[in-house]
Amino acid sequence: MAILSDLGTEILVPACAIVGIVFSVVQWILVSRVKLSPERHSLSNSSKNGTAEYLIEEEEGLNDHSVVQKCAEIQNAISEGATSFLYTEYQYVGIFMVAFAILIFVFLGSVAGFSTKSQPCLYNKGEMCKPALANAIFSTISFLLGGLTSLLSGFLGMKIATYANARTTLEARKGVGKAFITAFRSGAVMGFLLAANGLLVLYIAINLFEIYYGDDWEGLYEAITGYGLGGSSMALFGRVGGGIYTKAADVGADLVGKVERGIPEDDPRNPAVIADNVGDNVGDIAGMGADLFGSYAESSCAALVVASISSFGINHEMTAMFYPLIISSIGILVCLITTLFATDFFEIKAVKEIEPALKKQLIISTILMTAGIAFVSWIALPSSFTIFNFGSQKVVKNWQLFLCVGVGLWAGLIIGFVTEYYTSNTYSPVQDVADSCRTGAATNVIFGLALGYKSVIIPIFAIAVSIFVSFSFAAMYGIAVAALGMLSTIATGLAIDAYGPISDNAGGIAEMAGMSHRIRERTDALDAAGNTTAAIGKGFAIGSAALVSLALFGAFVSRAAISTVDVLTPKVFIGLLVGAMLPYWFSAMTMKSVGSAALKMVEEVRRQFNTIPGLMEGTAKPDYATCVKISTDASIKEMIPPGALVMLTPLIVGTLLGVETLAGVLAGSLVSGVQIAISASNTGGAWDNAKKYIEAGASEHAKALGPKGSDPHKAAVIGDTIGDPLKDTSGPSLNILIKLMAVESLVFAPFFAAHGGLLFKIWK
Amino acid sequence: MAILSDLGTEILVPACAIVGIVFSVVQWILVSRVKLSPERHSLSNSSKNGTAEYLIEEEEGLNDHSVVQKCAEIQNAISEGATSFLYTEYQYVGIFMVAFAILIFVFLGSVAGFSTKSQPCLYNKGEMCKPALANAIFSTISFLLGGLTSLLSGFLGMKIATYANARTTLEARKGVGKAFITAFRSGAVMGFLLAANGLLVLYIAINLFEIYYGDDWEGLYEAITGYGLGGSSMALFGRVGGGIYTKAADVGADLVGKVERGIPEDDPRNPAVIADNVGDNVGDIAGMGADLFGSYAESSCAALVVASISSFGINHEMTAMFYPLIISSIGILVCLITTLFATDFFEIKAVKEIEPALKKQLIISTILMTAGIAFVSWIALPSSFTIFNFGSQKVVKNWQLFLCVGVGLWAGLIIGFVTEYYTSNTYSPVQDVADSCRTGAATNVIFGLALGYKSVIIPIFAIAVSIFVSFSFAAMYGIAVAALGMLSTIATGLAIDAYGPISDNAGGIAEMAGMSHRIRERTDALDAAGNTTAAIGKGFAIGSAALVSLALFGAFVSRAAISTVDVLTPKVFIGLLVGAMLPYWFSAMTMKSVGSAALKMVEEVRRQFNTIPGLMEGTAKPDYATCVKISTDASIKEMIPPGALVMLTPLIVGTLLGVETLAGVLAGSLVSGVQIAISASNTGGAWDNAKKYIEAGASEHAKALGPKGSDPHKAAVIGDTIGDPLKDTSGPSLNILIKLMAVESLVFAPFFAAHGGLLFKIWK
Repeated sequence: MAILSDLGTEILVPACAIVGIVFSVVQWILVSRVKLSPERHSLSNSSKNGTAEYLIEEEEGLNDHSVVQKCAEIQNAISEGATSFLYTEYQYVGIFMVAFAILIFVFLGSVAGFSTKSQPCLYNKGEMCKPALANAIFSTISFLLGGLTSLLSGFLGMKIATYANARTTLEARKGVGKAFITAFRSGAVMGFLLAANGLLVLYIAINLFEIYYGDDWEGLYEAITGYGLGGSSMALFGRVGGGIYTKAADVGADLVGKVERGIPEDDPRNPAVIADNVGDNVGDIAGMGADLFGSYAESSCAALVVASISSFGINHEMTAMFYPLIISSIGILVCLITTLFATDFFEIKAVKEIEPALKKQLIISTILMTAGIAFVSWIALPSSFTIFNFGSQKVVKNWQLFLCVGVGLWAGLIIGFVTEYYTSNTYSPVQDVADSCRTGAATNVIFGLALGYKSVIIPIFAIAVSIFVSFSFAAMYGIAVAALGMLSTIATGLAIDAYGPISDNAGGIAEMAGMSHRIRERTDALDAAGNTTAAIGKGFAIGSAALVSLALFGAFVSRAAISTVDVLTPKVFIGLLVGAMLPYWFSAMTMKSVGSAALKMVEEVRRQFNTIPGLMEGTAKPDYATCVKISTDASIKEMIPPGALVMLTPLIVGTLLGVETLAGVLAGSLVSGVQIAISASNTGGAWDNAKKYIEAGASEHAKALGPKGSDPHKAAVIGDTIGDPLKDTSGPSLNILIKLMAVESLVFAPFFAAHGGLLFKIWK
Repeated sequence: MAILSDLGTEILVPACAIVGIVFSVVQWILVSRVKLSPERHSLSNSSKNGTAEYLIEEEEGLNDHSVVQKCAEIQNAISEGATSFLYTEYQYVGIFMVAFAILIFVFLGSVAGFSTKSQPCLYNKGEMCKPALANAIFSTISFLLGGLTSLLSGFLGMKIATYANARTTLEARKGVGKAFITAFRSGAVMGFLLAANGLLVLYIAINLFEIYYGDDWEGLYEAITGYGLGGSSMALFGRVGGGIYTKAADVGADLVGKVERGIPEDDPRNPAVIADNVGDNVGDIAGMGADLFGSYAESSCAALVVASISSFGINHEMTAMFYPLIISSIGILVCLITTLFATDFFEIKAVKEIEPALKKQLIISTILMTAGIAFVSWIALPSSFTIFNFGSQKVVKNWQLFLCVGVGLWAGLIIGFVTEYYTSNTYSPVQDVADSCRTGAATNVIFGLALGYKSVIIPIFAIAVSIFVSFSFAAMYGIAVAALGMLSTIATGLAIDAYGPISDNAGGIAEMAGMSHRIRERTDALDAAGNTTAAIGKGFAIGSAALVSLALFGAFVSRAAISTVDVLTPKVFIGLLVGAMLPYWFSAMTMKSVGSAALKMVEEVRRQFNTIPGLMEGTAKPDYATCVKISTDASIKEMIPPGALVMLTPLIVGTLLGVETLAGVLAGSLVSGVQIAISASNTGGAWDNAKKYIEAGASEHAKALGPKGSDPHKAAVIGDTIGDPLKDTSGPSLNILIKLMAVESLVFAPFFAAHGGLLFKIWK
């Protein structure tokens, strides 16, 4: 038996979640001390620090009041744009959720003809389980719960980010350290809120469901998988919709503003500039938040559903059963300590300290978490137990499970560092790409694509080793907890991720408010570090998605009662082949969408420059609202076909071709999608930073390629623009494609197993 | 029993091969009637036709003699460059062949400790088979034979192409129809020579091996698989080396010539122009020839090895056993008739008739071949027989096998037409890409990549359906004959393929010889049609590669005595994941190679323009030889790492991780590689034709984007340059990657089955 008592578990998990929420509220309060109204601002400042702080404006003799006023106005415009977009998106997504909830209910209810009679359990032989109808009802409820939690997570993240961006700008007047802390604390608000919220809702749902299910854990955890599906399907729309929004605006703004008109990034004369800044919040913040929340929810569900048919579940050992949740709980505590390293224990004094500080976050959290996992594995697990392994039971020791979680955690760190190596301009790969700009955009693109392809190698080996180790030790349960291990430091990961777009926005606001170039330099430095960490975050997201979807795949196979997925059968092989094609189909849709929306944006921006007199001179204001509308309309319209592709494929394949072909499709899309996702994000990140490398001109080599406006720089800008949809739309959306198809298959598995494969049934 | 007697088969197969060879000699003679020396030229012309023919020079009052002289000189330079490159390549490849032959002998000989004792057969229970040492010796011999046949094929193709290019130019003076026939006949020489040669060598080898093997067909056909390995490994070096050569020269020439200096394509002032034209011959002609020969050899071997352990092989039914060879024999006859439609039955009179004439070739050959397959299936097969299916025997009817071959043949046609739709500028996809050039190179690239991704969908479904149908009817034998079906019209396919680069070269010679722009227009029209058909040819090559490698995969699995390849085992899954990564690794290498070699070329070309006085004015000659040397050195040096990756992966994985992981790697690289290969070729083809669309300005839309030198045109040129390595180096090389790893695994299967998986043996 485990050392930790069941009561202890019942206290520990919600307590950690509440600690996380409290911590994020504290961070919010600290951020809110930066006032956006000029009068109270100086008041609170002096009252807080006792000593007067010098602002850049004061040094330069500028009018502080009007700058603060302007920042507040711009922040307001961004926040309104983002809120209104999310409301519009949620209307469409709400309709989808209701429709899909009905679909889940009908499909799962029909498995046993909507009978209310209890049925014999599938795995727990000899016992009676709740009727299939209960599974239909509770799956539907947990789907809605997951969806709502995801929406809430994305929405809160966006609110915090748009609350923090102008405050970061204002703090940048005092120094880079102050600005960094403001941006990072805001990121932490989002990170902790999401992690804690996801854990708490899941915990409460399990406990409420248990009132009905009682001892039928097999049924309970099967129904809980709906939570993962809900979370992930919202993430899909968030990522795709937000990704199209942000990149249509970004590409459109850059093509006319930077390339044609030669005005700087975020110049207030550019009509698409507000849309671009709104995009950062709805795409990078809300999208990423929903994505990682989805991964977290799914890996927990995958681990729980496999555990429920193992010795834990059959013997009703609650503490051991809750092992995945306890890992996440301890993760919140570990991340809390880690955050203090960035905000309180050390202070950033110079620009060059930012990137190391962020990287240190990753390392510290990983090291602390390793100890945390060891501790949890010791107190929450029996020293030996059995795990369900496709029809047989496998004996696992607690230290083996520790290794499974640990290998996932460290693989995440390796993926993070490899991503950094290939996307940061302090290393040779990006410098080579920048160098290739000497001969123009074509060689830049060729080198960038090659870099992206190459950057896949080590992450894939890291994932392969994690899979092999965790699979060998604890079968599919091992994979699921390895995924959880990679995501156990999610709060820190999200804080770092969210930090990037917030700094990006802060820079935009500084430019638009016409603040001193010294402030812009500080925010640029914050942003550059954020770019690399954003790439690292994407690496994490993809790596964890690969493990999660494999775990879900395993759970699906168990649930659909398939004992082998044999590549040598035609049904499986064609599934594999078509599955490997799906990421291409999906990417084609999303990239074309960004391209078309950007074309519309370009035309509108050009039109405004041509028809609004005095716009280029800065005497007339552009019509920001029309650009916001173009991005909104395009993203809402264009997110439907790729969304439909992902949501319908498992349903169609499972119903018509059956579970074997579906298993092939899942495996194929997983092994193919993960490669495209990694290479697309890294190629895009590398082009972005190659451009920044030339712009910054920090070395002799970089100076020779620059300055801004030189031919190599123009070539670099083209690469950067191509990379935008790759790294922020199609690449990261692929994570969701592979996870979502797997979790959807898992939820619908009872239906497919009972009624699937119609076409082959007719054929025979 | 089959209707066709064994004696009939023994006569039919070599007879058809000889007919093919004779036909190609006749075509050669017809091409050689176009004389490259001015005096005899007019003589033969008048003596042949009786009537005097008007040449463009005569109309324009130019000096005919000096033009012919110049063409002959340029042809000579190209031919010398190509020959010298191939000789250099063959030296390196020769060393590799010897080394690898030794490796094969040692690995296979060691299976049973170099014992000379007979051993019990693996499948033909109760019988005795030849010793493993015999397999080692004969596999080595057939490996060398396959390699030599491949080298010969590529070399002859190159010789013919460089013989025909200037002749096509000269014929263009008389009219587009004459030029077309010359180019097409030359392509046919290559197509028929390759198809007939491949068949004949294989037929002779089988008959010679039979002297030793006698009734041990299991051993005989196992040894014959070395023929496929030899063919394919030469193809790898041909494709990769040739691909790097041609694209380094092409990209280098374009970047400085077209983009920086604004001089036309193939301008004799461009120092890289000869290297560029040489590249077409060594890359597109020799590379493509070796590639398709490899596919053909492998699919025959895969079919034969599976058949040898089926009822044919066990009962020694020679005619049925030779079914794959008879299909290829009839294919030669069908292609012969098809060729006459292009050269004799109809005459091309206008430019717009060229593309339909080429497309008609595909349709005619497919329809005729369908009848041919039906006939062969009727006369050469018993009405019912059994096929080995992973441990069990499956009953197959002869009409079912007809459907297997037929579905492959027609899937090839569908893939061809889909490829045409996505790469020809008469349809909307390429026109959309051209349209996106309005907003610059970035949107062009985004749209082009999206187009490539999208173009994968239908071909994958076509391949999936072929696999499902042929697998359901006749297991792995069905897949092998489906691949053969797709390749049965190889002679026509190759003729069309080779036609493209010949026309391209003809245009280059016209430009370099300073011939009238009217001639250049005619050769450009020939070339444009060739571009689309080249894309179709690549589609065929990829589709057939997918089927071939699946068939080889099946044969490998049978030979390695694995009964299931279960994705749910960690060994297989990590293989799948890593396998799916290999095409990215490979592409990263080849694209980077092209990029680096092109950079060197650019620097050299710039240097010459800057340092040779009078070069731009046309008064001084550039130093062509240095550019040829740069391409040669780069391609020889750079082909080694990707070659090593492909050749070593199966050996390392099989030896260290064993046959299950290797099976996973093969399946993963197959399903992932085929997608990248298709999308890369089509993206590149689309960019090329989008540029041509703008240049030609044939519609209102195209005129609005043009003319040459406009901003949209410049954006289109950038896309075209990026597409070069995608469509001509990394994309088509991936075919070989997936085939070669499969055939290599098959050849080494006895070794891996006996001694493989060392790492896991130690681990346990």
